[in-house]
Amino acid sequence: MSSVVYAEELARRARVASRLLATAPTERKNRWLMDAAAGLEKRAMEIVEVNTADIAAATQAGLSAANIDRLRLTPDRIRAAADGVRQIAALPDPVGRVLDSKTRPNGLRIDKVSVPLGVIFFIYESRPNVTIDAAALCVKSGNAIILRGGKEALASNTVLHSVLQVALRANDLPVDAVQLVNTPDREVVGQLLKQSQFIDLVIPRGGESLIRRVAAEATMPVLKHYMGNCHVYVDRAAELAMAERIIVNAKCQRPGVCNAAESLLVHTDIASTFLPKAAATLLAKGVELRGCPVTCELVTAAKRATDADHAAEFLELILSVKVVPSLDAAIEHITRFGSQHTETIVTNDSDAARRFTNEVDASAVLVNASTRFNDGFEFGLGAEIGISTDKFHARGPCGLQELCTYKYVVFGSGQVRD
Amino acid sequence: MSSVVYAEELARRARVASRLLATAPTERKNRWLMDAAAGLEKRAMEIVEVNTADIAAATQAGLSAANIDRLRLTPDRIRAAADGVRQIAALPDPVGRVLDSKTRPNGLRIDKVSVPLGVIFFIYESRPNVTIDAAALCVKSGNAIILRGGKEALASNTVLHSVLQVALRANDLPVDAVQLVNTPDREVVGQLLKQSQFIDLVIPRGGESLIRRVAAEATMPVLKHYMGNCHVYVDRAAELAMAERIIVNAKCQRPGVCNAAESLLVHTDIASTFLPKAAATLLAKGVELRGCPVTCELVTAAKRATDADHAAEFLELILSVKVVPSLDAAIEHITRFGSQHTETIVTNDSDAARRFTNEVDASAVLVNASTRFNDGFEFGLGAEIGISTDKFHARGPCGLQELCTYKYVVFGSGQVRD
Repeated sequence: MSSVVYAEELARRARVASRLLATAPTERKNRWLMDAAAGLEKRAMEIVEVNTADIAAATQAGLSAANIDRLRLTPDRIRAAADGVRQIAALPDPVGRVLDSKTRPNGLRIDKVSVPLGVIFFIYESRPNVTIDAAALCVKSGNAIILRGGKEALASNTVLHSVLQVALRANDLPVDAVQLVNTPDREVVGQLLKQSQFIDLVIPRGGESLIRRVAAEATMPVLKHYMGNCHVYVDRAAELAMAERIIVNAKCQRPGVCNAAESLLVHTDIASTFLPKAAATLLAKGVELRGCPVTCELVTAAKRATDADHAAEFLELILSVKVVPSLDAAIEHITRFGSQHTETIVTNDSDAARRFTNEVDASAVLVNASTRFNDGFEFGLGAEIGISTDKFHARGPCGLQELCTYKYVVFGSGQVRD
Repeated sequence: MSSVVYAEELARRARVASRLLATAPTERKNRWLMDAAAGLEKRAMEIVEVNTADIAAATQAGLSAANIDRLRLTPDRIRAAADGVRQIAALPDPVGRVLDSKTRPNGLRIDKVSVPLGVIFFIYESRPNVTIDAAALCVKSGNAIILRGGKEALASNTVLHSVLQVALRANDLPVDAVQLVNTPDREVVGQLLKQSQFIDLVIPRGGESLIRRVAAEATMPVLKHYMGNCHVYVDRAAELAMAERIIVNAKCQRPGVCNAAESLLVHTDIASTFLPKAAATLLAKGVELRGCPVTCELVTAAKRATDADHAAEFLELILSVKVVPSLDAAIEHITRFGSQHTETIVTNDSDAARRFTNEVDASAVLVNASTRFNDGFEFGLGAEIGISTDKFHARGPCGLQELCTYKYVVFGSGQVRD
């Protein structure tokens, strides 16, 4: 089959499935989730076996150790994924909520009701457990999903997909609710990005180049997850031990993710007390510091930072550092260099906290907590399909509610317009 | 100044203004609205005079009578626009609402708070009163706006813009909160569509070709307002007199707008009773009917409809008509030919109404009311900046709330991630 025909067929089937799924009862969707979780655990050995073959091929192809680790499924990881699916089953159904209701003077009752988006095309890289999360979130929110994982994970994804489809069939839900692109052919992706009559949203989850390519080609809306240049600002009214714990966690706990801190701002009044000690802890953890002139005076091990350093998303153990004369200067710096992803202030001054949370524009602004908390699971969404750096529609971690839109349902008694 | 420099300058100024506007107190925004309304009324004679010159030029340029009428500002229309602005002042501030709040087991409090989008680029056609509505909605929702009206209305828009800016200055709000593109040069639009670092959303309001051009060129999200192929379905359990009133209103009250009905579906059980009488009324009002074979048997004046007729947005006194054997067939027809804009069922059967509202996917689904009610003012939003046919983010009439997004504000006491 040509990629054109294959892509259109996938998209058309997803659209048909999405119509059935949109009105599927909550209970049936939840039973599907519980069955899928049980199926994953029951077939864990088979999954691990197939995954081992994927890993062998990837190793031969020279994939990095970090990427091999991301690709790996172990019985523990499968159990964790199954638990995640059960957690999604336990969450309320996001479809059919009355978001707003009013009765107009002419007697019309107008309900704003949440409905699924329809069909979601999800493009992601090598982690196969994302297959499970994404399908669980989409189906629970009444959306059909077309999955396109990394080519290294195709065999693993194929067996996971089969577990999900068996459970769909068992629960009388459309099997095309979860479809997997069964070829590494890149042309199919391009063709799917043209199917705006059938696909309502595309979610590329991966590096910036993938997202830019998808955004440029797509004819439907794209949920974008660009970079996170996240700051921790230590205010003059900060509790310094807390500030140190927070920057160490934000930088070091998992440096390769988007909500890790890339930049530390320190109020000048506490710089000479705070910076040398915090820097020593960070240096001991292997962090390279790139600082402003004042930082470099206080911390001799620090290198000089350029503007490019202040703007960078390092995704490794490097931190840019700047001493600022005021809260205003901190906000100004974040406005200039930040990526509107995640920003933290450490302070015991409630006025400073209020100004920071009001004036800093980012998907999440935190007071006295690590940037690492901007995450669907940590925010209680059960899981997330991505962290949106977009503003129009969903922003930040996208869980079930963010995968819905709404329609107005209006009840009249024969009203016509004057 | 080159169009490149001019566009970037407009966009950059709007971004700076948007930051100030984002935290402007409600009271100050409302005072601005009241002052702007008063200013419009006070300067009504001057506005009418400038508008008369625009109309003279447009007449000379051969604009159609309908477009000349849309361009015209009269003292009555100015008063109505000023009243609209006062109504927006009376609405609650959409910024800073806590949309959701939860405290996590680790003690983090997570608020989801509404915030403005930032900068909106609004492209519209000849009606100058839209200038006022759009600016009022944007500033009240904390957004800076860049206005680009039709070239025929440039002089009228310039004086309206001056009224709005005088009121901004008087209330200590940034004058760049409302900017007007002061040239008919199309190149400026193209350049503005590239300023995604400064502009958060573009709203093209006009014909389908304008929207498609903008959507193709824009580097930022676009609020799209495509066509409305709206249906009225008369169920077998309909009250027939009500059904006739509704289809006549939906088709004839203002045939040139997107929420006018373009298609009538009639259940076969009541077709022979309902159709001849309703058709006579429609024909007497000058409506041309294009029907299926059964319709043409029942109504001799009807022409035969093609698939293209069923898919068309006529925007004039033409109606496609089809007799359907069941509610399922009606839903199926709407799914195939509808534009997900506005759909109405006329019925006294609550099961049929529930199935129709659940299964029909459109921005508004109505029971026993005219399609013409899918409108920001009629829905109690005060006014609207457009009716979105998009699904991702805002759908249907977009008022103040739909011009906002949200951010998460998180309060901790030193939490770090395990």
